[in-house]
Order: sequence, then structure tokens, then C-alpha cells
Amino acid sequence: MPTYIKPALVLDAGRARRNVERMAAKARRLGLRFRPHFKTHQSRDVGRMFRDAGVEAITVSSVDMAEYFAADGWGDILIAFPLNILEIDGLKRLARRVRLGVLVEAADGLAALAAGVGRPVDVWVKIDIGANRAGLDWSDRAGLARVCAEVARLPRLRLRGLLTHNGRTYGARTLAALAASHADSLDKMRRSRRALEAAGFAGLEISVGDTPACSRLDAFGEVDEIRPGNFVLYDVTQLELGNCAERDVAAAVACPVVAVHARRREIVVYGGAIHLSKEDFVSARDGRTYGRVCRPRGAGWGPVLSGTSVRALSQEHGVVTTTEDVIRRTRPGDILFILPVHSCLTVDLWKQYVDLGGNKIPTIRACGL
Amino acid sequence: MPTYIKPALVLDAGRARRNVERMAAKARRLGLRFRPHFKTHQSRDVGRMFRDAGVEAITVSSVDMAEYFAADGWGDILIAFPLNILEIDGLKRLARRVRLGVLVEAADGLAALAAGVGRPVDVWVKIDIGANRAGLDWSDRAGLARVCAEVARLPRLRLRGLLTHNGRTYGARTLAALAASHADSLDKMRRSRRALEAAGFAGLEISVGDTPACSRLDAFGEVDEIRPGNFVLYDVTQLELGNCAERDVAAAVACPVVAVHARRREIVVYGGAIHLSKEDFVSARDGRTYGRVCRPRGAGWGPVLSGTSVRALSQEHGVVTTTEDVIRRTRPGDILFILPVHSCLTVDLWKQYVDLGGNKIPTIRACGL
Repeated sequence: MPTYIKPALVLDAGRARRNVERMAAKARRLGLRFRPHFKTHQSRDVGRMFRDAGVEAITVSSVDMAEYFAADGWGDILIAFPLNILEIDGLKRLARRVRLGVLVEAADGLAALAAGVGRPVDVWVKIDIGANRAGLDWSDRAGLARVCAEVARLPRLRLRGLLTHNGRTYGARTLAALAASHADSLDKMRRSRRALEAAGFAGLEISVGDTPACSRLDAFGEVDEIRPGNFVLYDVTQLELGNCAERDVAAAVACPVVAVHARRREIVVYGGAIHLSKEDFVSARDGRTYGRVCRPRGAGWGPVLSGTSVRALSQEHGVVTTTEDVIRRTRPGDILFILPVHSCLTVDLWKQYVDLGGNKIPTIRACGL
Repeated sequence: MPTYIKPALVLDAGRARRNVERMAAKARRLGLRFRPHFKTHQSRDVGRMFRDAGVEAITVSSVDMAEYFAADGWGDILIAFPLNILEIDGLKRLARRVRLGVLVEAADGLAALAAGVGRPVDVWVKIDIGANRAGLDWSDRAGLARVCAEVARLPRLRLRGLLTHNGRTYGARTLAALAASHADSLDKMRRSRRALEAAGFAGLEISVGDTPACSRLDAFGEVDEIRPGNFVLYDVTQLELGNCAERDVAAAVACPVVAVHARRREIVVYGGAIHLSKEDFVSARDGRTYGRVCRPRGAGWGPVLSGTSVRALSQEHGVVTTTEDVIRRTRPGDILFILPVHSCLTVDLWKQYVDLGGNKIPTIRACGL
């Protein structure tokens, strides 16, 4: 195990690579275009694992992130975030370098984007299939037709299709519920598309992207493109939902033990909200957790300790509740590995990963962004 | 107002300076040593506002933060975090540069720290007065005496006193409850101290540090030192608890509007968990919020919009529920200011503030740490 003296974000690169290869193979097998979301790992080096697996098109969530990955040679980038009309200039700069895709849920800003953009830009219409987060309501035929008409009217904008993120699959606690949620989402997307076909917009593709469905389902119906991101690292949320196995979780935060409270069976670790994020997961069985806990094993970490959970997080420290057995074997100065509840938010807090060989792997945060 | 095209952490430096001066004046008036916690603002430049107000001693929460502020000339630094025995070397390096204080809740690591440390180190014993986060139980006389004896036995360690953070004041929703919580905390600290005096440890000081009590109370009993941090910026939590006024909140995140959903009275802003943190505040009146929302006014922001709240946060975007009136006046491309729920965690996400004049003020994150 590399030496840790303070919290560190640890990457099991072998697991990450396996996760990438498995999803790439699945997409190939099912005839789906694989456009992975890079907002989870946010690292040039992890991105290259996807390139090694044959991936050519990616998804990001900001203009900055698009620029970062464009600089590493990615040539087909979708910014899966509602068009921010204040960043039109940045989008135009990007469109000169890469095949750029943007997401819209209203006509605002499209004319400004089209005016003077050098190369054609792909436009996807964001559909809200009931998650009520962002997007045009799937049943709002007039609204959908209005946006599509604006795209079709403008030069150098290419209307590509309909895109959604079915966040409701994160509420699915069984495989049947997950499949039903996906089927419902796809049904709504198809109905939106049919309405638009009837209005004269033909050949629209369908793009979906949640890690739960992409990890567990084998039938995607009329989907053309999948955009999962989280699966490269997975996390406690996916583990609890049954979307991955423990051996698939590819990132953990190494945390020094700073105190052991035997009487109340608690361990205080150096590792808090600024190292893990305040994301929690609430289960009927175990209540609220901010992370699962493992001991070191080999160069990485071992199995999740049963009866053990991060039950509270302050800015810099976490409180782990555990068993008598774990208390007995734990001393100040030991390292515990905490599997994050939501790896995307955890990774975003760090400038670098450390791999199991002790090598530093920078993220976008190390690059002035 | 400076131009914002993407989320930015905005500092109203005038308000921050006023918050600093008010707390410094209060400490002077009450005869308390003022050792503000710098983990909230994490900025050399904001730190200098404290120096201008006559502050000489500070609190930080990590060795890295101590080094950062030592480099800016701070000479008396307490690391208010349980001693991490893996960082003994860093502590010794620091002790050569500054008057260093550390926090212990067990005897582990003290001998290693004392061995070969050049200059004396102040040692504070962390007391748990019932928050069950970190610290030695206030009533554990044997444990307290054991730790104090170890400090007293070792050369170049100076036993300074007892320190607590009464986090329970964050649960106090009235001034009376706040005063009662503080009185209870102080009573336990006094009893711990009496027990230690009886065991031969004389002259122990008492250090407390929560922003709620420090902001609202005027009687601190036998307290020698206060260590509040959050008050320099305040936030929605302190506002909801009645510990500050709206005009005291000195930081906000400027967020571009990317979509307006009139039918469901929602606004989607570019500004999510990676800009605000996932910290929430739950009130009986309004349910869960991830931030309060203001419109621009002058170079900064105006009053909190009533009936308006950040009700959901994704990685990059937030969903604001609001009133018909606000919906009518809001367009994509507008800027809204979101007051964070917990300013310490929000600031930690950023490399810099932008002040109301558009000047960039770097934080510790901009400095390779």
C-alpha cells in the first residue's frame, strides 16, 4: 500500500479499466453508440482508458470540461447541460476545434449560437420524462415542435434528436422496478418522437444515460446512444441499489484514524465533507450513511466492513460507527478506506487521484479550472 | 455588477470586514482572547482583515492550512483537529516557524511529537460535552487525568487547557435555547477543569468556539478564548437560526439562469452541488433548502426572495422553486445569487472569490494545496 499521511483519493485503475471495457463491450453487443459522461472521473488519464476501449465520442457537463478534454484530443463532445446563453462565445470557440453537441430545452440563445458559428453544431432537445429536474415536458408537443422548428430554421444547427436522463432509476430498489422505469422513460421518448415526426421532424435519435439502467438492463428498445458516467468508478449508491458489486467500486478515500472511542464504538477519521462531499444514502435497513468503510488489503482495500458506516461528517473529520471487533483491531494512525456515496461529487473535490502504485493522476482541478 | 458568465463565488468584502470588526470588538469588550477559525474563509486576503482588526492568534483545521497561513506571517496557530500522528513531521516543521497549538483526545502520538520538537508546543485537550463527535467525554475524569499527565510528563509540551466545540447550538432555534446550551456546555467544562485541578493540573484555560453563541451571547462566564469561524461570511443556516441578519451574509454564488419553467414555477440555474455543496437546511416552515435566492442589486445582491428556495441540486445545476412574480421577471441569461446553506463547505469548493469590484481573491485551493 502507498503511504498515506492525510486523506487521499485512491483509484483502483484496474477496476476502472474493467468497468470501461465491460460497458464498451455491452454497447457494441447491443449496437448502441457509447458516449460516456466524463463528469464522473474528470481526468485526462482515466479518459484515455475509454479511448483504449474504442470510444470516440464523449459527454461532459460544462464548457470548461469540454475544453479540458478537447485539449487531450477528444474530437466529438456533447455538453449535456442546458444551453447557457452567457457562454455562447466559448461554445463557438469549441465548435471550431471539435464536433460539438449542445442541449436545449427552449429556443433562447439558439439564434445567437448559430450566428457566426464556423462549423455545424449538433443540437439535442432535453426531455423531462417526469424527473422534474430540467428539460421540456415529454408531452408538451407544442413546446417541442417550437424548439425543433427554431433549430431547423437556423443555419449550421443540426437537429440530432431527443435526450433524457432518467434519474428516477436511482429510486428503483429492484431490477423489476428499474426495468419498468426504463420502459416508461423510453415509452415517453418514443411518444415525443412520434409527435415530432408528425410535425415534420424526421430521423430523430434517442439518447439516454443513467448508470443504473446501463449497468443492469440488456434491452434498450429504440435507444441509439447511451451516456452513462458513474459506472467507471461506481460508489455506495450504486452498490446499495444493486447496480454493481463491491469489486467494481474503483475509488475510495484513504483516511487516517485519529481517535478510537471504544465505549461508544466509534472511530474518528481524518476525512470529512471536504474530502467525501455531504452526499448521503438512506436505507431502510441501515439509516443514513456518508460512506462504507474498508480496511487496507494488498495495495488497495478489502471488503466492506459489516456493521460499519460513516454516520456523521464535519468539515474535516468523519465519525464511523462500528463493531466491537473492528474497534479492537483499530488504532490511531491506521488507514481506513471510505467508499464514497456519490463518486462524481467526491472526485470533484480533488486535484488528483493516487493509484494503487502510488502514482498521481491529475484531474481537471489540477489544471487551473 | 461584475460580469458573470458561469458560477462564481462572490465576496462582499465590506460585509466580511464589518463582521470581523464586530466580533473583534466584542471579544475585546468581554476580555476574551479572539482566536478566529480560518477554515471558513481559507483566504490569505480575508485573513488580513482580521490582522487589521488586531487579531494575532488563529485557528485552522489542518496542517496544510497552518502552513498556508504561516507563510502569510501568522505566528500563533492552533490546529483544532485531533492530533494525526501520521503528520508529526509536519507539525514539528511548523513548530519551528510559529507558536503551535495542537488538540488531543488521547495520549497517542504525544511522545512522538515531544521527541525532538525544537520549540514548545501548546496542547489543548478536546472535550466532548455531549455532541458525540470528537473529544474525551467531559465526565471521564480518569481519561482526562491520563492525557494531562502524559502532556505534563513530556518535555516541550505545554498543557494549556480544555477546548470544546458546542455544535449543539446549531440545534437551538431560540435565543433562550442557545443560552441554555452554552451554559450547559460551560458547566461541563468547568466541572472537567475542577476534576483536573483536584488531580493537580492547575491554571487550565477554557476555549470555546461556535458561531451561534459567539454571535448572540454577551456573557461567556469563565471562558478565556473564543474561536468562531463561520461568522466572517455567515450563511443560510445562521440566518435561519437567527444568528445573523441578511445584511451580514457576505458570500453568495452567482448563478446564470439556464431555463425558466413557468408552469411549475421553477427556474433551472447553472450552479449545483459542485458550486454550493450538498449541505441542506430543513425547517418546519419551508422544508429542505439548498440555498436562498436573491436578485442582483448594485454591485452585489438584494434581499432574499420570499417564497423562493433551491429545492434540488444536481452536480452542475440547481432547481429553484419560486413565485409567479419572480418567474415573470426572470429570463435565461439572468444572474441569480444563491446564499449558501453552509459557507465553510461552499468556500472549500472554490479556488477564488470575486469581490464586488470584480477583483479575484485566491483561496488556499489556488495555492497547490
